[in-house]
Amino acid sequence: MRQHETNLGELGESGILERLFPIFRHADEAVTVGPGDDCAVVRTSGELVFTTDAMVEGYDFLLGISDPVSIGRKAAVQNLADVASMGAKPRWLLTTVLAGKDTPIAVLEGIAEGIALEAHSHGASVIGGDLGTARELTISITAIGELREPGTAIVRSGARAGDVLAVGGDLLGLSSAGLAQVLGKADATLPDIEAGGGAVARLAKRALAWHLAPEPAIARGWSSGCRASAMIDISDGLVRDASRIARASDVNLDLSRAALESDRALLAPLADIFGVDAMEWVLGSGEEHLMLATFPANAWAESTEVRAEFREIGRVLPCEGEGTVLLDGAPLAMHGWDHFSL
Amino acid sequence: MRQHETNLGELGESGILERLFPIFRHADEAVTVGPGDDCAVVRTSGELVFTTDAMVEGYDFLLGISDPVSIGRKAAVQNLADVASMGAKPRWLLTTVLAGKDTPIAVLEGIAEGIALEAHSHGASVIGGDLGTARELTISITAIGELREPGTAIVRSGARAGDVLAVGGDLLGLSSAGLAQVLGKADATLPDIEAGGGAVARLAKRALAWHLAPEPAIARGWSSGCRASAMIDISDGLVRDASRIARASDVNLDLSRAALESDRALLAPLADIFGVDAMEWVLGSGEEHLMLATFPANAWAESTEVRAEFREIGRVLPCEGEGTVLLDGAPLAMHGWDHFSL
Repeated sequence: MRQHETNLGELGESGILERLFPIFRHADEAVTVGPGDDCAVVRTSGELVFTTDAMVEGYDFLLGISDPVSIGRKAAVQNLADVASMGAKPRWLLTTVLAGKDTPIAVLEGIAEGIALEAHSHGASVIGGDLGTARELTISITAIGELREPGTAIVRSGARAGDVLAVGGDLLGLSSAGLAQVLGKADATLPDIEAGGGAVARLAKRALAWHLAPEPAIARGWSSGCRASAMIDISDGLVRDASRIARASDVNLDLSRAALESDRALLAPLADIFGVDAMEWVLGSGEEHLMLATFPANAWAESTEVRAEFREIGRVLPCEGEGTVLLDGAPLAMHGWDHFSL
Repeated sequence: MRQHETNLGELGESGILERLFPIFRHADEAVTVGPGDDCAVVRTSGELVFTTDAMVEGYDFLLGISDPVSIGRKAAVQNLADVASMGAKPRWLLTTVLAGKDTPIAVLEGIAEGIALEAHSHGASVIGGDLGTARELTISITAIGELREPGTAIVRSGARAGDVLAVGGDLLGLSSAGLAQVLGKADATLPDIEAGGGAVARLAKRALAWHLAPEPAIARGWSSGCRASAMIDISDGLVRDASRIARASDVNLDLSRAALESDRALLAPLADIFGVDAMEWVLGSGEEHLMLATFPANAWAESTEVRAEFREIGRVLPCEGEGTVLLDGAPLAMHGWDHFSL
């Protein structure tokens, strides 16, 4: 017989908070009033960056497939990555969780642990939040970051013709490779994955883990990323997010097929099993959360740190009309993710 | 034939944002990067306060009964009131809306207009947000406020025996009176409300309007409220929120029945129709969002501004053990709202 799990309705709001507050405990001298009052109070100066991003059960994650800690980690990472992509260091988070009364408290504790893990590992504190009821489990996070000094925010509109286009990670496409397994095709393809041998099985496992809780090197955003002329994190796919820089900066971004060949080749054995072109994963995978940046040619040439943390994948070209994304000079169809696409 | 309404799925994410951004346009010199990049960037100094609060369709509002502008206004007000209750002035909002693809764009435009209306009227700007898909329409807002100088936050724990307990409004209980009408009893009681004559019908209409979009005088939080020793906004009911001050401050809060008699008497004709004691509404009504504060006796005596903006409804008494709420010296059962109560 399964042991009864304490649920939210049994604990009530204050009982739930008593369980969650200790998970978020974190020393932070700037916080003068922490969770538990109407607002948190924080000592600040200079320029702050603000972002917010939500995840909803059934749309952004599946409880049967992911686990609460991974859900919390992913919710935190997608917000922390937005902060990092401004060249800012994450400092404070507010976390809202909406859930049904019959939700086990262990689910909320797991989500809180995941959020705390990612926040604390990047030097950020959870300073407040909200609890409410909903049928769909929903996590909404607001992240606040600090720029090292005013005027240093890296926006999307700063790319210039001649800049280097680079990504802050060794492999693009993992999240789509994980999503393909999640989308009900895993059972049918499992024998093929196993037949593909140890390397394919390991790749499949790595991709699934990344999809459920990505581990992008977001610190590159506020370390060498502060030399970038434009930056974004890849949340909706390489081409879609690159096109945002292209449009905002009035430039074309020309991706190099040769530079992306290692990504394609690594993913190909798994993509073949799903009957898709691995290049589609490389170009369209959302929720990678790697930093995508453009660097002035001299910054790129001079800084070994930049070249150690970022990998060149293309060039910035002048454009006439609206900026767009090219592959070896040829226009690309849009790849990637739109929440509201039909 | 009903005209086809454009919905979110037809517009796509960028099409939706094109409709919403103009609604949020608002001059704000502190905002160096507004909506549209990975983060908003804001110039700050001193101490900031942060809060977040969400509303979910079917739990916190009903689309068939409320209208989008009211839903947006209420979502904004409950956050702005939290900022005000710290003695801070609201400055910036981030707004997340989760909705189904078949939601008409007019619903989101109305919600945005309601949020913008409340934000702008209190000097705050909407600087960013998130759009996502969900079956339940959900609005999650984060509000950031500025204290006039560091160390001036009014927290819950500052009430001292001898202080005056006061509320920043003329009438408590309206939201419960409106909720009673919403909760399916309106049709059955409508004939009685009409039979009650013009005054009862007007009261019913006023209560319903307050419930759907309350208009608390939140500016009192950062004007005379800055002289308070403790403050909170009434979001879960007078007794429940008073008990939060009592527990945090280790005091008893003794409500005066005589001071609340005008509220009870005004609501009684409507309460009678619903067969409830109007005092239950006065003591338990949530979502009032009026400021509830304690003032040192000398601040109360000296400041005509405080006495003009706040109304005395009780006294702060010493306590042994955990602080609690009394009515004319007698312990009170808990009244009010807990999201997760069974």
